[in-house]
Amino acid sequence: MVDVMLSDMLTVILIPLAAIIGIGFSLFQWYLVSKVSLTSSAMGNGLSDRLIEDEECLSDHGVVARCAEIQNAISEGATSFLFTEYKYVGLFMSAFAVLIFLFLGSVEGFSIKEQPCTYSKDKLCKPALANAFFSTVLFLLGAGTSLFSGYLGMKIATYANARTTLEARKGVGKAFITAFRSGAVMGFLLAANGLLVLYITILLLKLYYGDDWEGLFEAITGYGLGGSSMALFGRVAGGIYTKAADVGADLVGKVEKNIPEDDPRNPAVIADNVGDNVGDIAGMGSDLFGSYAESSCAALVVASISSFGINHELTAMCYPLLISSMGIIVCLLTTLFATDIFEIKLIKEIEPALKNQLIISTVLMTFGIAIVSWIALPPSFTIFSFGVQKDVTNWQLFFCVAVGLWAGLIIGFVTEYYTSNAYSPVRDVADACKTGAATNVIFGLALGYKSVIIPIFAIALSIFVSFSLAAMYGVAMAALGMLSTIATGLAIDAYGPISDNAGGIAEMAGMSHHICERTDALDAAGNTTAAIGKGFAIGSAALVSLALFGAFVSRANITTVDVLTPTVFIGLLVGAMLPYWFSAMTMKSVGSAALKMVEEVRRQFNTLPGLMEGTVKPDYTTCVKISTDASIKEMIPPGALVMLTPLIVGFFFGVETLSGVLVGALVSGVQIAISASNTGGAWDNAKKYIEAGASDHARLLGPKGSDSHKAAVIGDTIGDPLKDTSGPSLNILIKLMAVESLVFAPFFATHGGFLFKLF
Amino acid sequence: MVDVMLSDMLTVILIPLAAIIGIGFSLFQWYLVSKVSLTSSAMGNGLSDRLIEDEECLSDHGVVARCAEIQNAISEGATSFLFTEYKYVGLFMSAFAVLIFLFLGSVEGFSIKEQPCTYSKDKLCKPALANAFFSTVLFLLGAGTSLFSGYLGMKIATYANARTTLEARKGVGKAFITAFRSGAVMGFLLAANGLLVLYITILLLKLYYGDDWEGLFEAITGYGLGGSSMALFGRVAGGIYTKAADVGADLVGKVEKNIPEDDPRNPAVIADNVGDNVGDIAGMGSDLFGSYAESSCAALVVASISSFGINHELTAMCYPLLISSMGIIVCLLTTLFATDIFEIKLIKEIEPALKNQLIISTVLMTFGIAIVSWIALPPSFTIFSFGVQKDVTNWQLFFCVAVGLWAGLIIGFVTEYYTSNAYSPVRDVADACKTGAATNVIFGLALGYKSVIIPIFAIALSIFVSFSLAAMYGVAMAALGMLSTIATGLAIDAYGPISDNAGGIAEMAGMSHHICERTDALDAAGNTTAAIGKGFAIGSAALVSLALFGAFVSRANITTVDVLTPTVFIGLLVGAMLPYWFSAMTMKSVGSAALKMVEEVRRQFNTLPGLMEGTVKPDYTTCVKISTDASIKEMIPPGALVMLTPLIVGFFFGVETLSGVLVGALVSGVQIAISASNTGGAWDNAKKYIEAGASDHARLLGPKGSDSHKAAVIGDTIGDPLKDTSGPSLNILIKLMAVESLVFAPFFATHGGFLFKLF
Repeated sequence: MVDVMLSDMLTVILIPLAAIIGIGFSLFQWYLVSKVSLTSSAMGNGLSDRLIEDEECLSDHGVVARCAEIQNAISEGATSFLFTEYKYVGLFMSAFAVLIFLFLGSVEGFSIKEQPCTYSKDKLCKPALANAFFSTVLFLLGAGTSLFSGYLGMKIATYANARTTLEARKGVGKAFITAFRSGAVMGFLLAANGLLVLYITILLLKLYYGDDWEGLFEAITGYGLGGSSMALFGRVAGGIYTKAADVGADLVGKVEKNIPEDDPRNPAVIADNVGDNVGDIAGMGSDLFGSYAESSCAALVVASISSFGINHELTAMCYPLLISSMGIIVCLLTTLFATDIFEIKLIKEIEPALKNQLIISTVLMTFGIAIVSWIALPPSFTIFSFGVQKDVTNWQLFFCVAVGLWAGLIIGFVTEYYTSNAYSPVRDVADACKTGAATNVIFGLALGYKSVIIPIFAIALSIFVSFSLAAMYGVAMAALGMLSTIATGLAIDAYGPISDNAGGIAEMAGMSHHICERTDALDAAGNTTAAIGKGFAIGSAALVSLALFGAFVSRANITTVDVLTPTVFIGLLVGAMLPYWFSAMTMKSVGSAALKMVEEVRRQFNTLPGLMEGTVKPDYTTCVKISTDASIKEMIPPGALVMLTPLIVGFFFGVETLSGVLVGALVSGVQIAISASNTGGAWDNAKKYIEAGASDHARLLGPKGSDSHKAAVIGDTIGDPLKDTSGPSLNILIKLMAVESLVFAPFFATHGGFLFKLF
Repeated sequence: MVDVMLSDMLTVILIPLAAIIGIGFSLFQWYLVSKVSLTSSAMGNGLSDRLIEDEECLSDHGVVARCAEIQNAISEGATSFLFTEYKYVGLFMSAFAVLIFLFLGSVEGFSIKEQPCTYSKDKLCKPALANAFFSTVLFLLGAGTSLFSGYLGMKIATYANARTTLEARKGVGKAFITAFRSGAVMGFLLAANGLLVLYITILLLKLYYGDDWEGLFEAITGYGLGGSSMALFGRVAGGIYTKAADVGADLVGKVEKNIPEDDPRNPAVIADNVGDNVGDIAGMGSDLFGSYAESSCAALVVASISSFGINHELTAMCYPLLISSMGIIVCLLTTLFATDIFEIKLIKEIEPALKNQLIISTVLMTFGIAIVSWIALPPSFTIFSFGVQKDVTNWQLFFCVAVGLWAGLIIGFVTEYYTSNAYSPVRDVADACKTGAATNVIFGLALGYKSVIIPIFAIALSIFVSFSLAAMYGVAMAALGMLSTIATGLAIDAYGPISDNAGGIAEMAGMSHHICERTDALDAAGNTTAAIGKGFAIGSAALVSLALFGAFVSRANITTVDVLTPTVFIGLLVGAMLPYWFSAMTMKSVGSAALKMVEEVRRQFNTLPGLMEGTVKPDYTTCVKISTDASIKEMIPPGALVMLTPLIVGFFFGVETLSGVLVGALVSGVQIAISASNTGGAWDNAKKYIEAGASDHARLLGPKGSDSHKAAVIGDTIGDPLKDTSGPSLNILIKLMAVESLVFAPFFATHGGFLFKLF
């Protein structure tokens, strides 16, 4: 036993403590948001005390009632959709859970006898049946936590959107703080909750597994699989829902009828706003929770077969969890910079404030990682990597985590450069609108392709450094490093759709131009941060899935994956094709659902007299139903593709081909994901650039309704499914196939390669 | 020495004989095309004898003069562009040739002493300096042959286009035969010429190398590199040229001014037609010649280190060349089916006739391969594969070649299914135009992604079969199998742009509606066959580059390329990014050049009074100059990216990372290439579907000028750079990096990995 500064006792206390602080902070933020009252009748709502401007509007108590009503409609729509989604996904998950139990149980023929351990042959480990059982239970637990995370995020967002709108009456700073605090509620709750559940699970499993850490952490992988599977369906269904509504609403409303976005006369407008909450909030929450769970699992599994796993050094073993704990504290401090230390007064301060969050959290976290590495790790230890041993020092591991963290920041900034209309790439795209939609699309696609270059080099560099220093454990820790500031990342990410909704509510409630301008500015900043968030999600997904792949390879007892064998090579080729297949499905789904939506919206405009004049209310529910039905039906084929591919390949073609498929999907998928999400973000902001008309150049292209603007709207519409459906779902595809292969690795190692055995 | 039926003497005679037959056949076709006279003044032009219909038009001798004039303008524009292009590329090639000599010469420090052979250590082989010298010479020879192929293709096409137009006056069958014969001239000339040059080169090199076949076939790889480098610049420059003109012409002419395609009032119309000849004809000719040269080189290099290379069995060694010889004869027979055996009378017979060409050539070639395998190969022989020996029978090799051939046919048919408007995919895309350009683009992108699935499985299957049966030699032979019917493939391919030009000339010469309808039908069929041709080109590029990669690995003395090492993995990741980088460059180039073109065309329409009324001729030359300048300037960066990447990676990071880069670029590039070319083809034909209005459904979406049609035009314009610039250039990227690595393999093996040596 090597000496580590932090005692095991302290580790056991510190991790849950950090989680509880995170949850407490989150609840406190919620309390602050809840102080904005939505009941206009109550006299003590405190609004009149803090009045700054827009008196004419504040005195209109009807506006508050309208906001509350709209919020209610959105919240109800989102809740009912999520329940429908969860019902269907629940069925699928239960069936898959049975599959996990049967497949893993079959590895030792459902025997209940203990078996010699893989890495220390002289000891006895728990039977495969126990691992099958606990993997199944943890799969359901992971899915449940992910579901809970998504649901909670949605609840918070639909609680905060109207409040942000109301606060916008008092100034842009107030509105910003409300939206950002609400994002923070979600960020901290998710991060802390994920950590706590994982920690408690490990403690409980230890009661059964005792010293068999190998089996314990094998079972833990089920947690990651559950989280990611749920995230897949959440992202795909949410993505189809939101974009079918968005595209449908825009195509008729903005292009044909020339009415503004979020106009209450548009029948699809409620569905559109519901979509932001189920797609960008619930889907994203599930997604990042999945990444976090998986990277922790990957790190723990690899660690369990390192020297501190085998020597049962608890503190060192818990290093990944300690990093996450430190992350919560660092993010807490970072949040204060945005909400308390600096105050936002002007519109142009919004984007820098959000960017500063990223920089501050990264700088602080670098020190945090150094401290954790110093006190929680022995000065030197041994990692087992594909059959060879590797000696690693604590400072080397510090570099692994730090390189991931900083690569995340670089990816974030590159994404910002390519998607914010403050820089030349988006302005060039806007400029291309002069000659029509076609050149806009050509330039936008080119921009997306180009934006891949630096992020890929950043990911490659962090893989190279972490892999060279500490093999797959290094890669897993780099991934966790990128995700260590997840609370801040999620806060910024969730801020976007909340502001988007706030803008929609302001428009629908008929608030003054002044207020809409403020919510639009909040929204524009949110667009860029959403793109940054997606960049993070993709970058971390790449690292996580590589780490999971490494764990899979270790567990399947593969020592080389040689491209020069036909089985591996065809795996690579087919794997690289899967993201295309998946994108084809999701984009076509959005397209078809949008067509239906367009027809319905057109039908209402054509058959409901008085709708265009605003005297008759549109039928919102039919549009909500179209989105719901389409997304529930269309989430199955892409979901099945991702969930079944590893099983089919592993069973019929064996672990070598499966390795090829995983790597192929990873190296190809990460490119499409980045380019799709940046292309979409750029088109969106090119459109906003023309609409805002903040410079001479922009005014030359505008105003709203000009030919250039129409071309920009077409680009924006094309980008919708790219950036919000297929793009972000792809990182789940990459991760999920890897974690699924890891969970089923013992099964494939025993029963895989059926076809080759046959011939 | 194993007994082979075909004597060495007969082999030496049969190969050049087949090549000469091919050249003779090609010249005969040219003679037949040339019988269509373009001088209307001559009374003996024979036209009046064969008159069938459209009397009013035939009697108008002015039309012939106008056609001749337009043809002249196109031919002059194309020739002058190619000379400009060749001048700049020539400079680059010369510099690169010096680089080859210096780098390869440095392997043994420019020593002129003979060295022990790599595969038979007891023998002496020629010095590295000799290989450097001959590689350099062959590089220049390959580039020259490729240049010649492209130039010749252009000459034939610009000779045939107006003749096709004139023949259209007599009926669709006559016009079809003229266009197809002209395609055949190019196809046979290229295939036979490629074979002959390669064969003569081998004979000449044997004078120096004698029994050192290892060195001989090492030097031969320079030929492939030269061919492919030239093809890269040809494709990129030609692609930018043609699409800048096309997009520019369409955006102002079709979208803004509502005048038809190829209207003589459009200032960019000559540039557009020149573009078809320099891009689709010269570029494609160079490209397929490159593929053919590379697959032959790859097969020969791998064969030279097999048992028949080491035992100096000439006939067996020449198996790849014999397959190509057989291919020429088979294609000759196939051509007769289209031009003599079946006669086309109706428009709807055009597409089946072209498709039948593919089927007939594939079926006949299967027997051809069987015969060659039976008479030219020993019943069993040994292949050396990454350090291990593999016993292969002649029938196994037959399967390798045949599986490549049939995979090509499958890819061809899948491409047809996804790009022809006779099937539901393109009709769905057309249908999506109802709701505007955005849904059209979303559906089109989804279609392209989806169209990747089956071709990838076909390629994977042929790789698996050929790799398992005969290692990398099998893969190289599968590639050659796919290219064995290249003469027919090229004939079909070249037919497309010739018909396209014929249509343009008919429109510009003001011919009757009847005739334009016929040339349009020829053109529509050509669109699909162009997509099929691109499918072939991409599929064969994938196989070729894998074979080249295999040869590279053998020559660089690598026995495993393990994904589980960080150097290989980051290579994969970065390699998979390169096609995106490359596409970003080429698409942006087309976009910028098109913007300039649009401005010029608009300027002319706005400042030249009488232009729109047709009383004043536009200034064609300025538009030609814009396309020329843009393509010459913009071909450098993507060209440099492809040419320099292998050198930089190999020198600084070594052969392992380079292996990763090659495989990454291959598995990722092939997907983008297929999806880009099919998306573009589908949009083009969706537009044509609406324009033709041949069914109730199509009429519902049309007519020309309707909103749906406008949306379809936008899709078509976006597809232009995808299908004709970035898509087809990508297969050169894949191949070229592989063949370049192969040529420089000895240098990398000696001096590579500089960075890692440093630290």
